[in-house]
Amino acid sequence: MTEHEHEPPPGYEDDKAAYLKRLRRVEGQVRGIARMVEEDKYCIDVLTQISAVTKALQAVGLGLLDDHMAHCVVDAARTSPEAGAEKVAEASAAIARLVRS
Amino acid sequence: MTEHEHEPPPGYEDDKAAYLKRLRRVEGQVRGIARMVEEDKYCIDVLTQISAVTKALQAVGLGLLDDHMAHCVVDAARTSPEAGAEKVAEASAAIARLVRS
Amino acid sequence: MTEHEHEPPPGYEDDKAAYLKRLRRVEGQVRGIARMVEEDKYCIDVLTQISAVTKALQAVGLGLLDDHMAHCVVDAARTSPEAGAEKVAEASAAIARLVRS
Amino acid sequence: MTEHEHEPPPGYEDDKAAYLKRLRRVEGQVRGIARMVEEDKYCIDVLTQISAVTKALQAVGLGLLDDHMAHCVVDAARTSPEAGAEKVAEASAAIARLVRS
Repeated sequence: MTEHEHEPPPGYEDDKAAYLKRLRRVEGQVRGIARMVEEDKYCIDVLTQISAVTKALQAVGLGLLDDHMAHCVVDAARTSPEAGAEKVAEASAAIARLVRS
Repeated sequence: MTEHEHEPPPGYEDDKAAYLKRLRRVEGQVRGIARMVEEDKYCIDVLTQISAVTKALQAVGLGLLDDHMAHCVVDAARTSPEAGAEKVAEASAAIARLVRS
Repeated sequence: MTEHEHEPPPGYEDDKAAYLKRLRRVEGQVRGIARMVEEDKYCIDVLTQISAVTKALQAVGLGLLDDHMAHCVVDAARTSPEAGAEKVAEASAAIARLVRS
Repeated sequence: MTEHEHEPPPGYEDDKAAYLKRLRRVEGQVRGIARMVEEDKYCIDVLTQISAVTKALQAVGLGLLDDHMAHCVVDAARTSPEAGAEKVAEASAAIARLVRS
């Protein structure tokens, strides 16, 4: 991956194993919802699971965002006010997408 | 599954294949997010995917809820006002969980 | 208001006073947020209030929706399956707006 | 307000007039919702307004958050990594409240 050679590691580098574990669990939960639908489970029980998985995914998103700000945004700000402003604009757009999703 | 023998099919019965297809796609998307984390992809790009998957899951939830109300809630209401009230209370609780997730 | 003469009362009729009280409180909270901004209060404190007011508004929405389903949707379903289907489609669209807001 | 004498102005200082205008409009919209309830307007129409006001409030929150990060968080990061970390933790908690509301 040549394009990454000079790039810093992502902000979530230190928690990578934990994020992967959480995402595997979310993947299993989505598979479980499909199985519920296959077995004609009651609609409301399927919905309860969908809400739980949505929350779990959002929690992963909030964690990644916190790591991103603690590393990438702070580092950029310490490089120059302009670099900081650029990263903040990008983070704000991502936050707006999370809030609206 | 004896316990289901006398139960009516769930409200999503007619759209089951479509829901299963959408849930398989969501499962693949979650696996894709895990791969992005594994490959140290940029935090903001991972977050964009998380927002997209959250929306896709919520859309499945809204579809299931619509099917549930169109079938289970309407049928219960037609049986008796009390049966309708019971199903509405249950649906309202599920809606509150969706809105808050 | 001639146009309402033959219309049934809304589903929230019985809880009207309680809803009005809650909406007055929300109005006061929004005014309080404007005052915080006027007095240069700390951004994070303003945001905390915005989250609280958003939750209060959503709770009012969930309450109105529950009343609507318990009365209008159930009554329509008891009139005819077609009338029930129409009210359910309308309620589903409103729920989708709440979930996405 | 002695306690504020040595404090920097909030991050939204430059957009203060615009935020106040938007908050006044939200306040008027909430009053409009109360009037709709008073006049027995149709539940679904009231819900549509509630969704619109919730979105307007969230948009104000996202704007304030962007200003906060562009000023307070970047300035803190430029002072010291520790000061940056502290402001990021505080902002992350506020973002989590917004996403969950």
